[in-house]
Amino acid sequence: MTSVARPRVVILGGGFGGLSAARALAGVAVDVTLIDRRNYHLFQPLLYQVATAALAPNTIAAPVRAILRAQQNATVLMETVTGIDAAGRAVLVGEQRVPYDFLIVATGARHSYFGHDDWEKFAPGIKTLSDALAIRQQILCAFEAAEVCDDPNERRRLLNFVLIGAGPTGVELAGSIAELAKASLVHDFRHIDPSSARIMLIEAGPRVLPSFSEKSSAAARRALERLGVEVSTGKAVTACDASGVEVAGERIPAHTILWAAGVAASPVAKWLDVPADRAGRVVVREDLSIPGRPEIFAVGDACASQSWDGKPAPGIAPAAKQMGAYAANVIRARIEGASAPPPFRYRHSGSLATIGRNSAVADFGRMVLSGYPAWLVWSVAHIFFLIGFRSRIVVALDWLWAYTTFRRGARIILAETVGATANSRSVPEAVRQRQPG
Amino acid sequence: MTSVARPRVVILGGGFGGLSAARALAGVAVDVTLIDRRNYHLFQPLLYQVATAALAPNTIAAPVRAILRAQQNATVLMETVTGIDAAGRAVLVGEQRVPYDFLIVATGARHSYFGHDDWEKFAPGIKTLSDALAIRQQILCAFEAAEVCDDPNERRRLLNFVLIGAGPTGVELAGSIAELAKASLVHDFRHIDPSSARIMLIEAGPRVLPSFSEKSSAAARRALERLGVEVSTGKAVTACDASGVEVAGERIPAHTILWAAGVAASPVAKWLDVPADRAGRVVVREDLSIPGRPEIFAVGDACASQSWDGKPAPGIAPAAKQMGAYAANVIRARIEGASAPPPFRYRHSGSLATIGRNSAVADFGRMVLSGYPAWLVWSVAHIFFLIGFRSRIVVALDWLWAYTTFRRGARIILAETVGATANSRSVPEAVRQRQPG
Repeated sequence: MTSVARPRVVILGGGFGGLSAARALAGVAVDVTLIDRRNYHLFQPLLYQVATAALAPNTIAAPVRAILRAQQNATVLMETVTGIDAAGRAVLVGEQRVPYDFLIVATGARHSYFGHDDWEKFAPGIKTLSDALAIRQQILCAFEAAEVCDDPNERRRLLNFVLIGAGPTGVELAGSIAELAKASLVHDFRHIDPSSARIMLIEAGPRVLPSFSEKSSAAARRALERLGVEVSTGKAVTACDASGVEVAGERIPAHTILWAAGVAASPVAKWLDVPADRAGRVVVREDLSIPGRPEIFAVGDACASQSWDGKPAPGIAPAAKQMGAYAANVIRARIEGASAPPPFRYRHSGSLATIGRNSAVADFGRMVLSGYPAWLVWSVAHIFFLIGFRSRIVVALDWLWAYTTFRRGARIILAETVGATANSRSVPEAVRQRQPG
Repeated sequence: MTSVARPRVVILGGGFGGLSAARALAGVAVDVTLIDRRNYHLFQPLLYQVATAALAPNTIAAPVRAILRAQQNATVLMETVTGIDAAGRAVLVGEQRVPYDFLIVATGARHSYFGHDDWEKFAPGIKTLSDALAIRQQILCAFEAAEVCDDPNERRRLLNFVLIGAGPTGVELAGSIAELAKASLVHDFRHIDPSSARIMLIEAGPRVLPSFSEKSSAAARRALERLGVEVSTGKAVTACDASGVEVAGERIPAHTILWAAGVAASPVAKWLDVPADRAGRVVVREDLSIPGRPEIFAVGDACASQSWDGKPAPGIAPAAKQMGAYAANVIRARIEGASAPPPFRYRHSGSLATIGRNSAVADFGRMVLSGYPAWLVWSVAHIFFLIGFRSRIVVALDWLWAYTTFRRGARIILAETVGATANSRSVPEAVRQRQPG
C-alpha cells in the first residue's frame, strides 16, 4: 500500500488542525501518518455539555480511524509521542522512530494555572472527554451528597459552584450548571432544593467574554444574571483549596471549583528547541513553518501566528482548521513544484457563545446578535459543524428532547460512591436513627 | 413531607425488582426509601451492546431519581449498604441506621467463578456499566495494539477473543464482537485485517443457550457459525491467565477473555443470617418473604423462589419485575388489612436472544422463531421495555443507523494509552525505523 518513493507527511494530533491537514492531503501523492494518543477526534466546542450531563461523550467524539477510513493515503496510529528528532527528521514514540519528510504539529493546548499548578487538583479544567466526565461526576455527586448531608453549612458548600474565568467556556459552563440546578434537577430531590444552588462566575478582567464586543459582553452578563448566575468581574482568585476559593481576600466555601481561565500549549516548543511565546506556543513564519525548519509546520493552539491583522489567531476551531488546510497546501505546492501559497491570513467568521436555553451572543463584525436569534444561530452552526451525519442527528434530537422536557440525557454517575465528601455524609434525618452505642 | 405514622418500606437496589416494587407502592400510604450505591437504573439486557461499542452508556441507563421523580412517597438515597439489623429492623449504612417496617431486598447478582476467583482479573464479567466500559476499552484496544504490533504471534493473540459460557450473554457478546470485527472495523485499519479476528465461544455443557429449546439452540449455533464464531461445546475451561485459556487441556492464546458462565447473589443471605442455595440466593417462602421474618422480602436474582412450576424463576428482567410488584402487593394487602395475594407464581412470556444483524432466536412455548422474524421480535421487545421515552428513540435511531451503515456509534477509547499490551507494542514496519544505538 505504501511506496518508498512518496514523501512521508506525519501529523501530530487528531484535533481540528491535524484532521483538516490530513483531509487536505487526500489524493496528493504522499503517505500521511496521523498520530494521536487518543482514538477519537473531539468536537471541543460542545465539551461543556458533556460536563453538565446534557450530551453523552460519543455524540461529540468520533474515531479518527473511522473519519479517515476512505482516505487510502492516510494511516492512523494510536500512540504517545515522546519527542521529535528535528535534525534526523523523525518523530519519537518511545524507542521507535517515525521518519518524515514533512511534519505538521497540531498538538493543541492544556490548561495553564499561571504559576499556581497546585490549584489544578482543586479546580480542574476541561479539555478532554476524561476531564468532562470527571467534572460531570463531581457536579452530580455534589447534589447527591447534599441530599444526604445533615450539616447545613456543609450542605450549602456542596451546592456552591465556582467557575474561574469568564471566557466562552466559563460562561457556557455557568449557564449550563444554572439550568441543570434550576430546571433539570428541581423535582428530583426530597431533602434539598437544587434550585438553591449558587453558581458564581469569577473574572479577573473588567467584563465577561473579553474577546467579544462590549455590547455582547453586556448582553451575556444580563442573560447569566437572569439565570441566577452571580457574576463577579475585576476580582482575581487569590487562593484555592479543597474547601473553597478566596476572591480578592474574601473566602467562598465551595465543593465544586472549575478552571476556565487559561490555556498553555503542549511541550512541542521544548521538543523542537525553538522559541515560544508566553503561552508556550511555537513562533512560526508567515507560511506556518518553523524558523530554520521549512519542513516542520505548527498549526492551531500549538502555534502563535500573527495572522489576524497582526494579532495571533484565536484558539478556536475555525482557526485550527484554516491553519491545518493551509499547511497541507504549502506541502502540496512544494511536492508538485507549484508556487507557494501567499502568507497565511486568518479569516474570522464570528464569535459565538451560548448562555442557556434560548440565549446566546453572536458577534459577526458589524452584526451583533443576542438572545433567541443568537441561540438559533449557535445551535444550527454547532450541529452543522459536528463531524459525522449520525452525531448531528443524535445531538439535534438530544437538544430537542432537553428543550421540550427540561431533562438531561447523560446524568449517569459511573463511580459507585460519592467519595469526595465521605466525611460529611449521613442519611437524612427524616429516614434514619443514630446507631446506638 | 414524611409522616411518622406511615409504615416505612425500604427497598435495597434500583434494578428491575427494586424499581418495580417502588412503582407498585405509588399511591399507597407508606414512605418508600430506595437505596442504591449507583444513581442509575440499568437496562441490563442491552449491556453487551455497550461492551461492543454499539450503544452509549446513557442510552440504557436512567437516573433512579428521575424515574421516581413524580412519585411523592418515594425517596432515593445513593448510599452503600453495609448490613441489615433484622432484629432491630434497620438497614445499616456505615454508622447510620435506616429503620424499616418492611424491607424488600433486590440486590441482584454478581459473577461467580465457581471457586476460581483468581480468574476474574483475566476474564472479567459484565454486570455493571463500568464492567461494560472496561470491556469495550479492552476490545477496541486489542485492534489498536494489533495495528502497531510487529510480532505475528502476538498479533494473532491480540485478535483472539474467547467467551466463556454460552448462555444468552455469551451468545450475544460473541455475535456482536464478530460483527464488530468483520463488518464495522473492516476498512479502518491499514496493517491488520480486522476480519481475521477469531471469536471463540466455549461452553462446558452440551449445547449453546441451555435454557432454550433444542431447536433454538441448534438455530443459534448455526447463526453464530455463519458469522464466523467458533463454537465449542462439551469442553470446560481448565486454566485462565494473562496470556490465554486452556480448554480441556488445549492452550488457546488470547488477549481478550470474557466471562459469561455464572452468577452468584449478593451477600444478603450472610447479612440476614438465613439459608441460601448454592448460588448464594436467599431461600424464600411462597409469598417471597424470608422464613421467620414476614416483614422482609427478597426478589429477583437475590432470591431462590421455586415459583416456575417448581423450578426457580430464571434470572431475567421479567422475573425480577413480577417479584418486585408481587412483594409490594403483599405489603399493601397487609397495611390495608386485605387478604393476602395467592402464592407467587412466575409467568414466563418467552426467551429471547439475539445473535447479530437480522438474526435471533425466540422461544414462546409452542412457538419457536429464529432468523429475521425472531430478530424483529427481539428489537421491538427491547425498545418497548427500555425505560424512558427518550432512550427508546435514541436506541431505535442508533440501531437504524448501525443497520444501514454497519458502523458503531460508541467506539471511543477513554483511557489515553493502550496500556495492557505495552510490552508488545511498536510502530508498524511500514512507517518506522529502529532507534539507532
